[in-house]
Amino acid sequence: MRTLEWEKLSSKLRMIDQRLLPGRFEIVTLDNYQDVAHAIEVMVVRGAPAIGAAAAFGLALAATCSTAIDKSALLSELQTAASILRSSRPTAVNLSWGLDRMLTVARNTESSVDEITNRLVIEAQRLADEDVEINRRMARNGVGLIQDGDTIIHHCNTGSLAAVDWGTALGVIRMAHEMGKKIHVLVDETRPRLQGARLTAWELEQYGIPYEIICDGAAGYFLRSGQVQKVFFGADRVASNGDVANKVGSYMLALAAYDNGVPAYSVFPSSTVDLNIQHGNEIPIEERNQDEVLGIQINGETVSPANARARNPAFDVTPHRLLSGLVTEKGVIYPPYNVNLPMTILKVD
Amino acid sequence: MRTLEWEKLSSKLRMIDQRLLPGRFEIVTLDNYQDVAHAIEVMVVRGAPAIGAAAAFGLALAATCSTAIDKSALLSELQTAASILRSSRPTAVNLSWGLDRMLTVARNTESSVDEITNRLVIEAQRLADEDVEINRRMARNGVGLIQDGDTIIHHCNTGSLAAVDWGTALGVIRMAHEMGKKIHVLVDETRPRLQGARLTAWELEQYGIPYEIICDGAAGYFLRSGQVQKVFFGADRVASNGDVANKVGSYMLALAAYDNGVPAYSVFPSSTVDLNIQHGNEIPIEERNQDEVLGIQINGETVSPANARARNPAFDVTPHRLLSGLVTEKGVIYPPYNVNLPMTILKVD
Repeated sequence: MRTLEWEKLSSKLRMIDQRLLPGRFEIVTLDNYQDVAHAIEVMVVRGAPAIGAAAAFGLALAATCSTAIDKSALLSELQTAASILRSSRPTAVNLSWGLDRMLTVARNTESSVDEITNRLVIEAQRLADEDVEINRRMARNGVGLIQDGDTIIHHCNTGSLAAVDWGTALGVIRMAHEMGKKIHVLVDETRPRLQGARLTAWELEQYGIPYEIICDGAAGYFLRSGQVQKVFFGADRVASNGDVANKVGSYMLALAAYDNGVPAYSVFPSSTVDLNIQHGNEIPIEERNQDEVLGIQINGETVSPANARARNPAFDVTPHRLLSGLVTEKGVIYPPYNVNLPMTILKVD
Repeated sequence: MRTLEWEKLSSKLRMIDQRLLPGRFEIVTLDNYQDVAHAIEVMVVRGAPAIGAAAAFGLALAATCSTAIDKSALLSELQTAASILRSSRPTAVNLSWGLDRMLTVARNTESSVDEITNRLVIEAQRLADEDVEINRRMARNGVGLIQDGDTIIHHCNTGSLAAVDWGTALGVIRMAHEMGKKIHVLVDETRPRLQGARLTAWELEQYGIPYEIICDGAAGYFLRSGQVQKVFFGADRVASNGDVANKVGSYMLALAAYDNGVPAYSVFPSSTVDLNIQHGNEIPIEERNQDEVLGIQINGETVSPANARARNPAFDVTPHRLLSGLVTEKGVIYPPYNVNLPMTILKVD
């Protein structure tokens, strides 16, 4: 199944509970937008494209649950719902992008509450379907960057689970594999939530792609000893100069790739680009609960002292100078990014 | 107590079992060199200076346990013991340094087996006592590098537990605190064995030094956002050009410090320098069991797929160009390291 799916008959949103993988595969069913916002916040669903689609479905649920009697009352409810969904996670701009697209449809539909609701459900489904198609296009655009025999370091999870289906950076890797290129993936575990060790490892196993897990800090060792040919990761928000906010650890990984002349690529749909932001330093970085860091166990025992405190930024910014290319559904973008990125993103298909 | 102590009456070696900290404080007592080699291998004791001293005591135990009837038989047994102790961990050169010093004493003592044994025990104790004094000298040499108000990122554990007592990099930090400088330490957890989150956090808590734990991959975020003034770590082997092999992750941390103009220092005794090695690439890097990576748990559950495999290099090499200074008991060494490092290390006190 897809990471998230709309149940037409019951008007409910079903999603894979990604917190439980790979140990358990469980589906949660949500019937109101508040639960969707909570699911995004606690990371039942995560990954920039996936939470963009989840937020859109959340707004569809706000409409289906509404008892508003006219358009203006409905719009007011939708705006409240959108602001709650928008604040569920601050860094990925796909959330705002999906919500704005839904709000535009609601505003532009001059019709009954029922008809607006109907249109919103259709729009969310369209957004989700488009996401899958866009991801496949990214993979086709990026697959030429991977050569037969490459060993690739991949950060976090950017596969099917990070999107509605298929994925961004891992989608490129998957397509290379399906085209018959022999590749090997070093999956960095991606502390604190271990999306690499949990989700990417699980996906690669299903695709039959050979992989090994490494600690985040070990990437430099493999890059420096000449064992790696490419580095791939996704993006949660991209500034107009090409700076990429992505899962914490991406910056150090890109630095180590650059220091060894190994190309690093970020893969993302154009909905991840925020042309309102000129420079990566302007991107808000979410700091999550310290328990994500302190909850680590070995042999069933917590490792840190009982009184220990932790800091837990969930993202960091990779300066564009460290990236060899940006892969989007509109093509691979090369430097100078401050010119080529806006030009490519604003291009009408 | 010290990390390791010799029991005079019973001729046994006692050491803190560092695998159990901070949850449990337990002492293990070893009465033969094979158990010492095993304790080093499985990391009951770890840290370059500590394992150098442990190996020396291991050779003392080889002598006390020996039934050799003359010097040549004893020397032959000691050589066997030394080669087993030496191979217990390949990267830190302190192991070889300690063993060679002990073997030299044995060879140069023209006396009975009992007298040689006696001399070996004394020499191991002297080596351990010297280690404490050398560490304090390093701290005095390095403390001027830390300013009042500094936030410092520290990697792995380099405190009392990594040495016989006091410590290397953490010893400098501790002395700055004891001198009244207000400092804050960001302790990176240091996957896979989490020496930072376990041991350094535990030590800092005992010293009353304010700290927070961060994931290894988050160091770049804190450095790039201007929240860090210094980076400190230890060393397991230093080449004559100043390249530093240290706990895996050090290289990426040093890269991130360098990229942001934040000085990074490596702190080590001269016994960690291997002048036979011209360049860091010649330093052997230990690869440890994959279970250290895969054994991580959250909520009591293993996180990776059951069939997952992992790679686990325990160290990496930080090129000297990324380091602002090398702190030793003979002084702080600045570039050009290929000149200043051998000159300082070969200097007779």
